[in-house]
Amino acid sequence: MAKSETPNKTQKTEGKNEAARTAISPTRAEDYAEWYQQVVRAADLAENSAVRGCMVIKPWGYAIWENIQRELDAMFKATGHKNAYFPLFIPKSYLEKEAAHVEGFAKECAVVTHHRLVAGPEGGLIADPEAELEEPLIVRPTSETIIGATFANWVQSYRDLPLLINQWANVVRWELRTRLFLRTAEFLWQEGHTVHASPEEAEEETRRMLDVYGTFAQDFMAMPVLKGPKTPGERFPGAVDTYAIEAMMQDRKALQSGTSHFLGQNFAKASGIKFHTKNETEEFAWTTSWGVSTRLVGGIIMTHADDDGLVLPPRLAPAHVVILPVFRDDAGKARVMEFIDALAKELRDARFGERRVEVEVDARDIRGGEKQWEWIKKGVPLRIEIGPRDVDAGAAMVARRDRGVKDKVSVPRAELVRHVVTTLDEIQRGLFDRARAYRREHTRLIDTRAEFDAFFTPKNEERPEIHGGFALSHWCESAACEAAIKDALKVTIRCIPFDTSDIAPADTGGPGRCVACEKPSPRRVVFAKAY
Amino acid sequence: MAKSETPNKTQKTEGKNEAARTAISPTRAEDYAEWYQQVVRAADLAENSAVRGCMVIKPWGYAIWENIQRELDAMFKATGHKNAYFPLFIPKSYLEKEAAHVEGFAKECAVVTHHRLVAGPEGGLIADPEAELEEPLIVRPTSETIIGATFANWVQSYRDLPLLINQWANVVRWELRTRLFLRTAEFLWQEGHTVHASPEEAEEETRRMLDVYGTFAQDFMAMPVLKGPKTPGERFPGAVDTYAIEAMMQDRKALQSGTSHFLGQNFAKASGIKFHTKNETEEFAWTTSWGVSTRLVGGIIMTHADDDGLVLPPRLAPAHVVILPVFRDDAGKARVMEFIDALAKELRDARFGERRVEVEVDARDIRGGEKQWEWIKKGVPLRIEIGPRDVDAGAAMVARRDRGVKDKVSVPRAELVRHVVTTLDEIQRGLFDRARAYRREHTRLIDTRAEFDAFFTPKNEERPEIHGGFALSHWCESAACEAAIKDALKVTIRCIPFDTSDIAPADTGGPGRCVACEKPSPRRVVFAKAY
Repeated sequence: MAKSETPNKTQKTEGKNEAARTAISPTRAEDYAEWYQQVVRAADLAENSAVRGCMVIKPWGYAIWENIQRELDAMFKATGHKNAYFPLFIPKSYLEKEAAHVEGFAKECAVVTHHRLVAGPEGGLIADPEAELEEPLIVRPTSETIIGATFANWVQSYRDLPLLINQWANVVRWELRTRLFLRTAEFLWQEGHTVHASPEEAEEETRRMLDVYGTFAQDFMAMPVLKGPKTPGERFPGAVDTYAIEAMMQDRKALQSGTSHFLGQNFAKASGIKFHTKNETEEFAWTTSWGVSTRLVGGIIMTHADDDGLVLPPRLAPAHVVILPVFRDDAGKARVMEFIDALAKELRDARFGERRVEVEVDARDIRGGEKQWEWIKKGVPLRIEIGPRDVDAGAAMVARRDRGVKDKVSVPRAELVRHVVTTLDEIQRGLFDRARAYRREHTRLIDTRAEFDAFFTPKNEERPEIHGGFALSHWCESAACEAAIKDALKVTIRCIPFDTSDIAPADTGGPGRCVACEKPSPRRVVFAKAY
Repeated sequence: MAKSETPNKTQKTEGKNEAARTAISPTRAEDYAEWYQQVVRAADLAENSAVRGCMVIKPWGYAIWENIQRELDAMFKATGHKNAYFPLFIPKSYLEKEAAHVEGFAKECAVVTHHRLVAGPEGGLIADPEAELEEPLIVRPTSETIIGATFANWVQSYRDLPLLINQWANVVRWELRTRLFLRTAEFLWQEGHTVHASPEEAEEETRRMLDVYGTFAQDFMAMPVLKGPKTPGERFPGAVDTYAIEAMMQDRKALQSGTSHFLGQNFAKASGIKFHTKNETEEFAWTTSWGVSTRLVGGIIMTHADDDGLVLPPRLAPAHVVILPVFRDDAGKARVMEFIDALAKELRDARFGERRVEVEVDARDIRGGEKQWEWIKKGVPLRIEIGPRDVDAGAAMVARRDRGVKDKVSVPRAELVRHVVTTLDEIQRGLFDRARAYRREHTRLIDTRAEFDAFFTPKNEERPEIHGGFALSHWCESAACEAAIKDALKVTIRCIPFDTSDIAPADTGGPGRCVACEKPSPRRVVFAKAY
């Protein structure tokens, strides 16, 4: 394989006005938050809608979500879960049943009060005063209460347990400050809801699904995550224990990417989920819930994208390969397209993991540079350029999204399909390794408050800059110390990690002294700024 | 293959108390509407929720919907469509933009007026008066207006066209009288929305998607449908033309099972979808929309289910085969289960159509009769019973859901996998043929009002009975005649069929005289009572 000798001349002028400029402006270093918005826009993933806080997920973004859904759905089914669907609306009285839950969710919800519009006295439509609901309905922010009420009818005996259900749905949490994928009023998610005969089984389920999320994040998203329980102050409203997977983004902030909750008997009592035991007693059941959302798309962006746009992990990419024909006249076009059609067919018959290799052929009549940059910004793992000279040589130029734009290799036709599949695998592993190294690089063992403050304080007060990371520090388990640090630095405890071997030396597990108050601490926890 | 000599003795006593009784009570003939509810319940498909008009779709019902989704989604993608996702909420002002549309949908919708709950003066929660929305939001009853507003930004030039988008979503239409799957306040559906540069292209798309629906209904649901335009009075609010697929249920009523709308420039004008043409003029675009919903599950039930419960067309069945072990002791169990494990594995490696053969092994420790009847009521196409004697004989007893309960054949082990795949195919075709014959049997060419009235009037006034069917009758195209018949008999024009060759003699296409007013009519249309 030889380096390309014929870089397309339009490359430098399309998408990039100068050789030194990046396709995304500003860069991560210049303004990370704005960079994120520009990556979303340049990859055509989503946009804000006219409805406050609600996003439109565009085809490229939705295709990533479909891939996430397909893989997770298979993992849920392999662990014995079945899908079902429950109402969008929750009666207000249901929300009131669990005290902590209502406290957490009543503050930011969409309330349906009427079931009809009529012509108003001043023209236009108004909510019909004659059609006011007796009891307002809440658009579900999460479905524990409505599903609990349903499960109370489904569960009678220990023979009905475990009950293992998942729902793919939209949910609404009224948010003032929204950011595409990361925080929107409406978002898409899955919520698992399970019922068990004992706390041990429910705890086991909670941990099993946390592990499913961890495996998915690492194997498909190429995103390393820390797993562990949240502190009491960060628990899901109404949960006995909340576990999370936490990832480090490229601005070194944490992204809570999935949560799994052990709900004890709290929701079973609120909803009346009881069962007859083998000993013919009646007991409240033990429940769990767990979810991930379209936020994961944000996680992919912020873990892998660079200053030229999105970089997709091959196992979730809507297209693995884009083939770009290069020709100057009709005769050239015919030869090139014949070569490409055969190649595309052969690639589509090959497999990458459980999927077929997905191929886009972009034969649009626009300039080659513009076309190439579009696919770079969309994050497609591999680009294959084929012109008449390549056809003559029986080869094609292959470029990887995880390498420099001009870093192209010529691959003989006979080796192309194998080369594609092998390279996709290499990219998938490479992205994960890079993200893991980044996380390790920006994780510190910090034992003094002064060092802690310095770590989490930007050097330049004039404009936001990337700083901090994960601090593995001691905490005395008091809510007061947790709150003091949060108030002072906007830094929170992300989780109490089960395993820090990937981010710290082996001997970091023992007791120490709280970074806030210096009182004894049983173990280190992960502090970070977070989304 | 020999008939079974060893019917399980518990069969007659479980699920059926007497030999003559059916598993579903009442039967179709006794009370069709109640039979439907009982089939839904016995097959564990869905149930009413505590939220008025909203259903809970249970795992077995949802699995059917997942199969419908997967197959339709592949057909949409094969015809060039991409999925996307748009907001759940529609600003009230959007609904007001299209006059006919608002008339059709404002009457029955969920109106969100507040974004927070607070503690009320008398305890409990109330919609926070401080958190009233400036503009009420409507939970989408359909998304033409919100998607149109988005498309107005996406479409600039003829190069952006056609724009071919589909959305899988939940929608809400406030309904007072609901019936599981057939008419619920919230339901799941897909809605295609496309934009074109000319009316011809948009019309072509409208017809293409009607054909996709027709093909899906016939090939997957085994449900014959008539295709054709609706009358002006039955059009989608805001459409220029609405086309539908119409099927005959077993009570001989029509079920409108899918619609495809040519929207002309109505929504493009309301939403401002304009494009620059090749000639550098600016024009409003031409749009279409098309949808099918969870109502299709109701269509499957009412087309195929019988007095023993659900009958599933194999191509949409969540399980193709259930294997039922029969044994008396642990030694027998071990031998039987070993035989079954190997068989199940071999079956799962086989393919039926594009899918793997889906196998359930029901080894629960409950009586064999009860178990068998559960799967009959759930509609699984094939049941395989295996006991120690079958293991000895190297064979298994196979029963088909489309045959009598006791109609079992012994199939040698070596032939089993092939037998299963072939029989599934036979059942799929058999169900379609039976439904088509039923439709033909209950379709009449009717040319006089007296015969028309008699056809649509039940004989027994005391209780509802199955009567009528499809009347192929002449209509003068006046809204008055259409309304007169609807008022008198609750009979509507289902469609103006493109093709009646499957339900009537070849020479029924010409002009005649209106069945209501005897004025000249250009062609026959399909009249029926409908869901």
